[in-house]
Amino acid sequence: MSAPVPDEYVLGVDSGGSGLRLALRRVDGDRPALMSVCAEPVRTGADGIDAAHLLEQLLPAVRELLERAGQGTVAAAAIGAAGMATLGGQLREQLPPALAQALGVRRLALAADAVTAYAGALGQRPGAVVAGGTGMIALGTDLTAWRRADGWGHLLGDSGGGAWIGRAGLDAAMRAHDGRRGGSAALLARAEAAFGPPTGIPGLLYPRTDRPALLASFAPEVGACAVEDDVAARILREAASHIAEAAAAVCPAAEGPRSDGLEVALTGGLFRMGEPLLGPLHHELAEQVPQARVVPAAGDPLHGALEIARALAVPGAGPRLPPHPTLLFVPGGT
Amino acid sequence: MSAPVPDEYVLGVDSGGSGLRLALRRVDGDRPALMSVCAEPVRTGADGIDAAHLLEQLLPAVRELLERAGQGTVAAAAIGAAGMATLGGQLREQLPPALAQALGVRRLALAADAVTAYAGALGQRPGAVVAGGTGMIALGTDLTAWRRADGWGHLLGDSGGGAWIGRAGLDAAMRAHDGRRGGSAALLARAEAAFGPPTGIPGLLYPRTDRPALLASFAPEVGACAVEDDVAARILREAASHIAEAAAAVCPAAEGPRSDGLEVALTGGLFRMGEPLLGPLHHELAEQVPQARVVPAAGDPLHGALEIARALAVPGAGPRLPPHPTLLFVPGGT
Repeated sequence: MSAPVPDEYVLGVDSGGSGLRLALRRVDGDRPALMSVCAEPVRTGADGIDAAHLLEQLLPAVRELLERAGQGTVAAAAIGAAGMATLGGQLREQLPPALAQALGVRRLALAADAVTAYAGALGQRPGAVVAGGTGMIALGTDLTAWRRADGWGHLLGDSGGGAWIGRAGLDAAMRAHDGRRGGSAALLARAEAAFGPPTGIPGLLYPRTDRPALLASFAPEVGACAVEDDVAARILREAASHIAEAAAAVCPAAEGPRSDGLEVALTGGLFRMGEPLLGPLHHELAEQVPQARVVPAAGDPLHGALEIARALAVPGAGPRLPPHPTLLFVPGGT
Repeated sequence: MSAPVPDEYVLGVDSGGSGLRLALRRVDGDRPALMSVCAEPVRTGADGIDAAHLLEQLLPAVRELLERAGQGTVAAAAIGAAGMATLGGQLREQLPPALAQALGVRRLALAADAVTAYAGALGQRPGAVVAGGTGMIALGTDLTAWRRADGWGHLLGDSGGGAWIGRAGLDAAMRAHDGRRGGSAALLARAEAAFGPPTGIPGLLYPRTDRPALLASFAPEVGACAVEDDVAARILREAASHIAEAAAAVCPAAEGPRSDGLEVALTGGLFRMGEPLLGPLHHELAEQVPQARVVPAAGDPLHGALEIARALAVPGAGPRLPPHPTLLFVPGGT
């Protein structure tokens, strides 16, 4: 294994609903990464994520970062995108030749955002990562294969995620309004403060296209109620149980004793809810995933993309995270 | 109280997603009603249910029914419509003068479909009616005021309805696919038979505008699994519990002993699922609404509209079901 060349860089990209984020870092690693943000989210059309629209924003931004860095070449790049697994066909087809031609990128990985979240949280170690926001998905690996659980959206799963918690909270509010069992007067008061008269909430919610985001906007209210309100506390205990179920389904079996064993990390905005969710969640993880230690996520998905790119840049080695046709696509193999 | 005049008729109308249904019956009652169906559902625009579009279909259909009946006049009419409570403003404004002018209707009621469902099921007796289909709503009255529970749609409630049951069944199918706790291999097999590979179900469901109907289409599969599958059976027990909670919230207190007491009726397509749902539901109703007897629904919402119209036709009396500004609007009072 020859040492990396000093004027070479690795590029990490994170494409999501709030835009395209880039980070450029020296292959030999210690200097901080240079970051850049393109605020326009990459378009998704009938053919999936639009490769031309991504390149249009990405290429000038990379050239500018290289200039700020004092010139050099991109030895390897990793691009993580929301929807990569199901909507990334065009990216997998067009990005490898386009990035080779425009930037001379010889080593490239195209990753689902859950994979960059994994790499950001745990690097290239085996374990499980739960990514929670409006939705909820868990991804695990023993470095041989990936396992995925949930992430099926607000009507089929995402159990324990932000939309799930918010929906359960509004259900309890409407129950209190009706005088049905399972209602919470505290959640009803918060729903009224947030959305107005309860009978008007259906008319606010159903015509919108971002219904899951609207439901998730109520999740922090459930968290804020949980200290004093039994119904809200129960909702968060159930959410914690569902999140741990997803972690348990993807976590590989431990090989060594627990202290050297596998790690589970939590990443994403859902966990900023703090103690009302994290308290029951740590309890559930200890029950359902006893072979793993819960560790803080080391970094975010952009950090994870850089991590994958850095592994790709090591000649003859490549990432230890297992390649996969849609989750972690490495053209030409590693 | 003078006796009704023999050549007078009452008109009942039921307007819903599958079109406009009409029934005409002699005020003195015993001969079967004449029925007619206009297959085109009444349009709903930005101003709510379109009164002109309803009249356009209704008036010729009523004239034809009167002709088939051998002429006569319409003494009273009751029009039930889905969405009447929230989207019926135009109807409440325009129908009374239009029907007086075109048909000489002097007595009119405009009812929410839950109210015609109530009147169809229990007539003008006090009690509670649960109307279940894709959604679920309960309505109760002591003949002084109405009480309503649930009917808030698939993201805020409709707990125990068809979409709720189907969603819970698909959640269990995806859990089995992932290897998460709470999964059902039997429901996964049925989901695959109905919708193809499980990873493709999100792509089938989310782009559609009739997501609740698609979810509800899976409810009978849950019912069919329940005999042998514990997860499916648990889903239906929970549905039964939620349905009974709605009934309990609206059922008035009993005044006499149980045998003379209040009645609870179940109406709508949900209950055609039969024993797998009705078994646990009767059990839950006995627990949660002990003051009421469960009785079969006497008729459907069109029958209920006729019932209300017939009560309106009795001079000086009027319906015993309580008027309400949106649920049961009787212009000029009773």
